[in-house]
Amino acid sequence: MKHHSSSYSILVRLRYADTPGFLGRITSAIGEVEGSIGSVDVVSVENHEITRDFTISAYDLEHSEQIVQRIRAIEGVTVVSAEDRTFLLHKNGKIEIKCKIPLKDRDDLAMVYTPGVARVCKAVEADPESAFSLTIRSNTVTVLSDGSAVLGLGNIGPKAAMPVMEGKCMLFKEFGGVDAFPLCLDTQDVEQIVRTCVYLAPTFGGICLEDISSPRCVAIEEQLIELLDIPVFHDDQHGTAVVVAAALQNSLKIVGKKPADVRIAMSGAGAAGAAIAKLLKSMGYEQILACDRSGIICRGRSFADNPVKQWLAEKTNAEAVSGDLGTALRGADVFIGVSSAGLLNQEHIKSMGKSPIVFALANPVPEILPEQASPYAAIMATGRSDYPNQINNVLCFPGLFRGLLDVRAKRVTASMKIAAVQAIAESVPEEQLRPDFIVPSVFDRSVAPSVARAVAQAAVEEGVARIG
Amino acid sequence: MKHHSSSYSILVRLRYADTPGFLGRITSAIGEVEGSIGSVDVVSVENHEITRDFTISAYDLEHSEQIVQRIRAIEGVTVVSAEDRTFLLHKNGKIEIKCKIPLKDRDDLAMVYTPGVARVCKAVEADPESAFSLTIRSNTVTVLSDGSAVLGLGNIGPKAAMPVMEGKCMLFKEFGGVDAFPLCLDTQDVEQIVRTCVYLAPTFGGICLEDISSPRCVAIEEQLIELLDIPVFHDDQHGTAVVVAAALQNSLKIVGKKPADVRIAMSGAGAAGAAIAKLLKSMGYEQILACDRSGIICRGRSFADNPVKQWLAEKTNAEAVSGDLGTALRGADVFIGVSSAGLLNQEHIKSMGKSPIVFALANPVPEILPEQASPYAAIMATGRSDYPNQINNVLCFPGLFRGLLDVRAKRVTASMKIAAVQAIAESVPEEQLRPDFIVPSVFDRSVAPSVARAVAQAAVEEGVARIG
Repeated sequence: MKHHSSSYSILVRLRYADTPGFLGRITSAIGEVEGSIGSVDVVSVENHEITRDFTISAYDLEHSEQIVQRIRAIEGVTVVSAEDRTFLLHKNGKIEIKCKIPLKDRDDLAMVYTPGVARVCKAVEADPESAFSLTIRSNTVTVLSDGSAVLGLGNIGPKAAMPVMEGKCMLFKEFGGVDAFPLCLDTQDVEQIVRTCVYLAPTFGGICLEDISSPRCVAIEEQLIELLDIPVFHDDQHGTAVVVAAALQNSLKIVGKKPADVRIAMSGAGAAGAAIAKLLKSMGYEQILACDRSGIICRGRSFADNPVKQWLAEKTNAEAVSGDLGTALRGADVFIGVSSAGLLNQEHIKSMGKSPIVFALANPVPEILPEQASPYAAIMATGRSDYPNQINNVLCFPGLFRGLLDVRAKRVTASMKIAAVQAIAESVPEEQLRPDFIVPSVFDRSVAPSVARAVAQAAVEEGVARIG
Repeated sequence: MKHHSSSYSILVRLRYADTPGFLGRITSAIGEVEGSIGSVDVVSVENHEITRDFTISAYDLEHSEQIVQRIRAIEGVTVVSAEDRTFLLHKNGKIEIKCKIPLKDRDDLAMVYTPGVARVCKAVEADPESAFSLTIRSNTVTVLSDGSAVLGLGNIGPKAAMPVMEGKCMLFKEFGGVDAFPLCLDTQDVEQIVRTCVYLAPTFGGICLEDISSPRCVAIEEQLIELLDIPVFHDDQHGTAVVVAAALQNSLKIVGKKPADVRIAMSGAGAAGAAIAKLLKSMGYEQILACDRSGIICRGRSFADNPVKQWLAEKTNAEAVSGDLGTALRGADVFIGVSSAGLLNQEHIKSMGKSPIVFALANPVPEILPEQASPYAAIMATGRSDYPNQINNVLCFPGLFRGLLDVRAKRVTASMKIAAVQAIAESVPEEQLRPDFIVPSVFDRSVAPSVARAVAQAAVEEGVARIG
C-alpha cells in the first residue's frame, strides 16, 4: 500500500511561456508518474513567461526525484528550483525566542534590564519560590535528550536528535501553551546526565526527558525525581503508557470487557513496556505477560543487569508462565506491541481470544499492519497517522505539563497519570466510540485543556502543588 | 541629584465620580509630592464613575509609596490597584518560545515531526556540520551564569540571577536578531560548570558567559575555549573591554593624544580590569597601572592564588611602580574604574595630567559622580543611562554574536575584538565627536550590524569561520 506523504513532498518552481495548454501538460505529466499535486501558485508573469510554484507529494524520496525528472522532460518548461519541503521547513531550526514585552526606549530598558531588574533579582533572592512568578520558570520546561534512542533511528547522538526535540517543543507550545526549550547533551553517562539536569533545574518548571535508551532512562528519571522539586517525566515511557491506557479503556468499553478480566500479551520489555505494565497494573489490569526477544518474561529468568526486565519479572506474570510470544498471545484479549516491525502474523491474531484488541505500536512499521490484522481483530491501533486510532504521545504531554505548570507541581504522581488517562479517554464521547475511533484526534484542541485540568486537580488533591 | 526613574514607576488605577475638577485635583496631588506623571488612560466610564490608569515615575521605592499614600488621601478617589511597573513587566518572565512555522494539520505534523523529521535527523547524523543549517544551532546561543557575581548584587545564586539573564536575551534578540536562551546553573564549581557547558554545546552556536565571579570566570572561559569549537565569550570581561576601548579611542581623538603616549590608571583588578588591560595592550596602549584595594599591582607583590592579578603584575606596570591609587592617578591621562562606588574625589582628578579622561564605571554608583569630576575632567563617562557617555555592553554583544553566527565562527579571537572596537568607535562620525558624545547611543540600531560585519570579516580573514 503506497501513500502520498507530505513528508516526501517537494516544492517545484517552473517557468514556461504564458500560453494556453502548458499547465495542462505539466499537471498531466505529474499525474502520469503518480505525483499528487497540492497547491499551485503564480509567482510572477513577465515578458510573456509565467513562473509557478507547485507543491507535489510523493511516495518516497526516489519517487519525488522521478517526478522532477518527468517534469524536466517537458519541452519548454524550465525547472527553476526543486526543493524538499521537509528540509525547507527545518531550515535554521523550527523555534525561536520572542520578547514578551517591547524594548523601544530607555524607560523600557531601565525596567527590563539595569537598574530596574536589580529589584526583581533581590525579590527572588529573598523568596526563591517567587522564581515561579517572576521568571520564565513559570511556563518553561526543557525537552532534554542524549540522542541515544531517537525515534526508530537508534543512537544517533545529540546533534542529530535536535530536529526531533525542536519538533516536540513546537507541539508543547501549539497544544499546551508551554514554552519548551530543547537541550541535547553531549554525554550518555547516567551520572553526568543526572548532574547536568540538577544544575539546569533552577531555570525550568519541569523536565521532559526524551528518547533516552532503556534501561538508562529509568535510572536517570528515578534519580532526578529523588533529587529535584520540579516534575521530571520521561515521555517515551509514561506518555506512551498514558495514551495506551486511555485507548485500552475505551476499547474495553466497545468490546464489553473489564480490566481485571482481560489477559494482555505485550511485546517489548524496554522502559516503555515496563511503564505501560506499571500504569495498567495500577488501574486494575492484573494479567500481563511481557515478552522480550527470548520470550515471556518470568521469574525463572535472570535479569541482573537490567532492572527494567527484573521489575517486569517480579511484578507481572504471577503464574510464571514461560514460552514465546506465540504462547503469550494464545487466548489473550489484548496485544500491546512496543517492539519492532513485523513480529506478528495473521495466525497470531487468530490464536487470540474473542474480540481481540491489537495495539501494534512499533514505529514507523508496526508489529503487524492493519490490513493484515483487521480481518481478525475487533480493534486495531498503531502509532501511525495514516491509519485510524493513532496512539500518539502528543495527546498527553502538552496537557500534562500545562497542568503541572499551572499549579507549580513538585512531581508527577501515579494518580496524575491516571487522571490524564481518564481525561484522554473521555475526550471521545461514549456515544461516539467505535472500533476505529478509540482515541481523540491529535488535532482535537480540547484534549490538552482537559488533561491539564485533570492533572492540576490531582496535584492539588495529593498535596504536591505549590498553588491552586 | 534626584532622578525620576522608570525603574521606580508605578501603575495606579483610580476610580472616581465622572465630574469636572477631579482629574486636576489628582494630578495636582501627585505633583505636590513630586511624582512625575506619564500616561493617563481611561479604562471605563460606568454609572457616572470613571476609572483611569496613571503611570507615575518616582525617585525610589519609598517615594513611590509616598505618592500612593498622597493619592489615597484625596476624598472621593478609590485606589483600585497600585502596582510596581517593573515587577509587572517581569511577571512570568520576559521571553517565550515561538514556532517559526505553522502546525495546523496532519501534513504539517508529518513534516516537522514524525515521520518526516527522521530524514532530517539522518542528514545531521551523516553530516554533523549540517546542524548549523538544519537546527536552531544556526541562530541560538545561551546566556549562561552561575549567579555568583550578578550586577552589583554579588553572589545571589542561579534563581535570583534569572531576571538579568532573561533581560540580556531580550537585548540579544532586539539588537542582534540572535535567539538567546538563559541558563542559570545550580553549581559554582569551576569543573562542573565547564563540564555542563561541554555537554550543552551541541544545542548552541555560541555561549555567552555572564556574571561569573573572578577569577573563576577566567578559568572557566579558558577551559571552554580549549574544549569547544563554538565561540565562548564572558561578556563581563570582554564585552566591557571592547566598549571601554571604543570609548577611549574616540576620547583620544578629541583630546589629541596617541595610545602609546597615554598613561592609564585603572581601579579594579578583577577579570574585567584584566580583560581591559589585555585588549588595550593589544591596541598599542603601553602604560597601564592597575590598582586593587592594596594599591598598584606590581611584580613585587604575590598573587599565587589569583592568576588574574598575577597576569596584571607580569604584563602591566613595566617600571614596577608601587604605591596607592593616588600615586597611579598623579599625572595620568586616563582613569578607568571597574571597582566600587566613591573611591575617587576631586583632588584625585585635579592631580591627573592635562585633559584627563575619566571612565568611572562602577555600577550603580560610579567611583566619582560626573557632577564632581566634570569641572576638572576633559571627558567623563559612566555605566549609567542617566548621564552622557554610557559605557554599555549592549553596544558589543548583540552585534558580536550576530557576526559570529553569520559565519559559524569556531571561536572569538583578539582581532575580532579589535574589529568590534573600531566598528563601535566609528559609529560616531568623527565630525560629531564631542566630550559628551564619545560612544553611540544604546538605541542606535546601526551599531550591531556594523559590529557584526566587522567581526564576521575578521573571522573569515583569520580562518576561524566555517562559511563566508
